[in-house]
Amino acid sequence: MKVLVTGGTGFLGRHVARHFVEAGHDVTVFDLAEPHDPETRWVSGNLVDPDACRRATYGVDAVVHLGAVGDVYLAGEDPVLAARVNVVGTATVAEAARTQGVPKFVYASTWEVYGHPEYQPLDEKHRCEPDHPYNITKLAGEQLVRSYAALKGLPAVCLRLGTAFGTGMRPNSVFSIFVERAAAGQPLRIQGGGAQIRQFTHARDIARGFELAAGSALENHFMNLVAAETTTIRQLAEAVVERLPTELEIAEARAGEVPSALVSSALALDLLGWEAERTLAQGLDEIIAERVRR
Amino acid sequence: MKVLVTGGTGFLGRHVARHFVEAGHDVTVFDLAEPHDPETRWVSGNLVDPDACRRATYGVDAVVHLGAVGDVYLAGEDPVLAARVNVVGTATVAEAARTQGVPKFVYASTWEVYGHPEYQPLDEKHRCEPDHPYNITKLAGEQLVRSYAALKGLPAVCLRLGTAFGTGMRPNSVFSIFVERAAAGQPLRIQGGGAQIRQFTHARDIARGFELAAGSALENHFMNLVAAETTTIRQLAEAVVERLPTELEIAEARAGEVPSALVSSALALDLLGWEAERTLAQGLDEIIAERVRR
Repeated sequence: MKVLVTGGTGFLGRHVARHFVEAGHDVTVFDLAEPHDPETRWVSGNLVDPDACRRATYGVDAVVHLGAVGDVYLAGEDPVLAARVNVVGTATVAEAARTQGVPKFVYASTWEVYGHPEYQPLDEKHRCEPDHPYNITKLAGEQLVRSYAALKGLPAVCLRLGTAFGTGMRPNSVFSIFVERAAAGQPLRIQGGGAQIRQFTHARDIARGFELAAGSALENHFMNLVAAETTTIRQLAEAVVERLPTELEIAEARAGEVPSALVSSALALDLLGWEAERTLAQGLDEIIAERVRR
Repeated sequence: MKVLVTGGTGFLGRHVARHFVEAGHDVTVFDLAEPHDPETRWVSGNLVDPDACRRATYGVDAVVHLGAVGDVYLAGEDPVLAARVNVVGTATVAEAARTQGVPKFVYASTWEVYGHPEYQPLDEKHRCEPDHPYNITKLAGEQLVRSYAALKGLPAVCLRLGTAFGTGMRPNSVFSIFVERAAAGQPLRIQGGGAQIRQFTHARDIARGFELAAGSALENHFMNLVAAETTTIRQLAEAVVERLPTELEIAEARAGEVPSALVSSALALDLLGWEAERTLAQGLDEIIAERVRR
């Protein structure tokens, strides 16, 4: 399968591109930034450039659209940028894919589109009430993709991803911060007591979900893609400290901290046969090994 | 009050600008297009141009943000344009208003953000599931404005408007089509039997809602602003035929036709003291008088 991975140079995109390559697909990465891996075929382009998107989607069997302002704090600082990349960029890529007759479009949405949970675990019937420029713009992108599927015949699957983790994470991720501090012998600060529950989802499990969606016969679906394993921030800190011994400190909650919510991926199991296979412990070992190799 | 009306050259914007002028406010229109009314103070500018938005919002007491791709069919044809204007444009104007310390931002949202009704009448607690590039991008704009209110201290009110009617409507509105055809002695076609219910809301009633919101102490609210009077498309056609006698014809439903839904504006009555005062009959008389004067 000829696959275009937008945002394929970013943290998650790199894992997704590598997974598709290893699974034997013909992969091109579309990104502003050059890939770290020199063997990746790269098209330099901006998501909001219609000509670049049309050229990049020509002859492609599936577009895997990860390109976005994926950093929640950056989106909060610059909502205009988040709107431009996450909404206009998504519409531009979807329009290009439709024009080129691309037979499958897979969109990286997020479990954060739900906002405050009315019941748990969150399933796809739960209402979406995003409240931050990040999840607002990611949901608008998802809804535009779904409208391309419903109104314009672009076969599309939207995956509402759990918080991804794995090697090569952004320095402001909680994993990077904990591992950096522990490696430097500094204490780990746990925001707001650390009781917030997360379902960290390994980037390679997410990548496999994209491959399943790209190869599926689904034409207009959206679903959660979140690991079942739950971890509190405190448990994450403790798991880091087990591997890189240091002190734990309790700190105040940050404004805009995403609240706890359990998410069900029963629909992804049903429609794609997807379940997370990698544990937090495995992924954390990989992240620490990467840090040690530096 | 010094008021900036974005999109003040469009159909609804013209009524809003005129209403604010008549109520004694100091009004500037921000629009790409020149106003029809030569007495309106006009700043030519694009909503997605941050510098133009910053200049236009300087020293302003309230921004009334109507600028949008407001034509549902155009938004469906060009989702990229709808995303750029309705989402990025809104974020750009909100960012400018925040930067300039503007004390009130009023956003023109739409009752169409709700999507398929789960219960009726639709109130503000109903979930929003927009399904078309028009209502998707209008809701994303609303949510970004609300996030500016909640996270960045921009006092904002979002008004979910009923389908506006009045003089100077777009030629593809059902009013314009009916009146043009009847005036030319052609039969009126009623799409899908004409049973769809609308709560057409007079542009001047909407304008009054914006004035009430701009002068209110509300800081982070959203509410429906829809006339209570209900009219089916068939009743509208019959009302036109009463005034300009011609034949009626039943035609097939158009794809993407907005379904019927009753909308409550009890919250606007409670928070702003707003109720529609003008009837369909009054507004229709004005539209026909305008047509006859041409």
